[in-house]
Amino acid sequence: MDCTVRDGGLMNKWQFDDEFVRGVYNACSEAGVDYMEIGYISSEKYFSRKEMGPWKFCFEDDMKRIVGDKNNSLKLSAMADIGRVDPDDIPKASDSVLSMIRIACYAHQMDKAIKLAHQCMDRGYETTINLMAVSSISEPELCEVLNDVSKCHVPIFYLVDSFGSMHHESILYLMNKYKEALPGKEIGIHTHNNMQLAVSNTITALIHGATRLDATLLGMGRGAGNCPVEVLIAFLKNPKYRLLPLFKVIQEQVMPWGKKIDWGYHIPYLITGALNTHPRNAIAWMESERKDDFVSFMKEMHDYELLE
Amino acid sequence: MDCTVRDGGLMNKWQFDDEFVRGVYNACSEAGVDYMEIGYISSEKYFSRKEMGPWKFCFEDDMKRIVGDKNNSLKLSAMADIGRVDPDDIPKASDSVLSMIRIACYAHQMDKAIKLAHQCMDRGYETTINLMAVSSISEPELCEVLNDVSKCHVPIFYLVDSFGSMHHESILYLMNKYKEALPGKEIGIHTHNNMQLAVSNTITALIHGATRLDATLLGMGRGAGNCPVEVLIAFLKNPKYRLLPLFKVIQEQVMPWGKKIDWGYHIPYLITGALNTHPRNAIAWMESERKDDFVSFMKEMHDYELLE
Repeated sequence: MDCTVRDGGLMNKWQFDDEFVRGVYNACSEAGVDYMEIGYISSEKYFSRKEMGPWKFCFEDDMKRIVGDKNNSLKLSAMADIGRVDPDDIPKASDSVLSMIRIACYAHQMDKAIKLAHQCMDRGYETTINLMAVSSISEPELCEVLNDVSKCHVPIFYLVDSFGSMHHESILYLMNKYKEALPGKEIGIHTHNNMQLAVSNTITALIHGATRLDATLLGMGRGAGNCPVEVLIAFLKNPKYRLLPLFKVIQEQVMPWGKKIDWGYHIPYLITGALNTHPRNAIAWMESERKDDFVSFMKEMHDYELLE
Repeated sequence: MDCTVRDGGLMNKWQFDDEFVRGVYNACSEAGVDYMEIGYISSEKYFSRKEMGPWKFCFEDDMKRIVGDKNNSLKLSAMADIGRVDPDDIPKASDSVLSMIRIACYAHQMDKAIKLAHQCMDRGYETTINLMAVSSISEPELCEVLNDVSKCHVPIFYLVDSFGSMHHESILYLMNKYKEALPGKEIGIHTHNNMQLAVSNTITALIHGATRLDATLLGMGRGAGNCPVEVLIAFLKNPKYRLLPLFKVIQEQVMPWGKKIDWGYHIPYLITGALNTHPRNAIAWMESERKDDFVSFMKEMHDYELLE
């Protein structure tokens, strides 16, 4: 699944023009990518369209303008955050260009996530639950959450390395835990590149049973970014996929954004990843005039003694 | 081992000023890094000092200007390429600030590499042999080379991913092969980041027995660059090492070079890595005005059908 617009949009408030989104859509389609996540599905009650671009909302009119009559095999997905969308805002799948809705939640929101996921399934969508920030919860809490998920009808559950703090062993541990706790469900993987392990962690999850792989063009995503689609496809060497359309859209649409926003590996993101903490402080630092002063950033971080 | 000056110098003909090299030396020393490779040891017969900076040659006077009387625990290394240095150019270890000389060679040069390594050992140096481009030779050829190495006295042999084409399985395979063929010898690892797997491959080698790990500050090295020292140390969480001095020199000395030369992950390097070929064409492309035209680069590559 290409998540460039959805995860990359976290870095520019989803202010992509239509040409960008159409370019990503056409490239993914030509490249044989299976799904494209085109944004978040959110309510105008919670966010202003003056501040946020269209892909924070995923209104049907905006999506239809991009995909036309959608006569190809690339399926569209949108992500819903708990508490930022009302079920009434979600149309029936038969009235939408979306095929899938992915519910993102923290552990304490799992009841609400399962409820919303079931509502989406009832409306005809393919549905997943993506548990964020799993590296920051306790083992008993995780067991409880997995027990709840095991009893629900949602067929796909995601291992999400929100902070980019995981490595081979932690991915392996959680993959085995998820598979054991959730028989019959598919497992997905979504990684961040703070420790330069996003590609490796995605491949590790794949080798150990993940069947849904998230990636973004040139790794464009929050903070240190994600596993790049083009690296994953170059690695897979599966004739189903093609690289050239991806290189073309990277060159024409994604690279110009690289001059405006700083996703990808930067030392402040390494610091939050190594500290297993949310990248928000690093993102704010990278947006400030002191972005290249890593030493000061490290000293300002609460736990910096850990890394000194 | 920090290789910033040696491997990074491949991108700027070793035109670092003294402040840069002294900054790296002091930072590595404060950070607890064990070795620093300060450049190549080469003869003026083969290269011009007008074209190449001092760290292509590693003359004692240049090195002494940086390290002074060398009263700390950071050991210095230099790399020697077969055919680019004469044994007579190498002083006795007791007359040098260098502790180690690493011999880099291709498979067909192994006889000469072993001979030169033995000469370095006789002069009192710690010595390694680093077999380059192992991903491009046949299995029987590799067996023959390993057989020769097993009979020599050189105590350390390096697994080198010259093209950045390796992944978890290939590292694992070669680590096991090297360990089995070379009982009693230490194995080292040197990676490149073309497929964004440099960190992961270094960690994989470490877990499977590598005791010598190469890395560079901010990954500064040829083409897609290397495993970054700061990521490796953040990962290791070994109290022997400190991150802050590394962040300081990255900020003050390494980052400014990032505005002048393009090491690190770029699509042309991904292409040569995925094709398992030398990055020279990608480096030339990145130095041209067409550097962001990946599509044309891919079309110009001989084997581009493989990736289309």
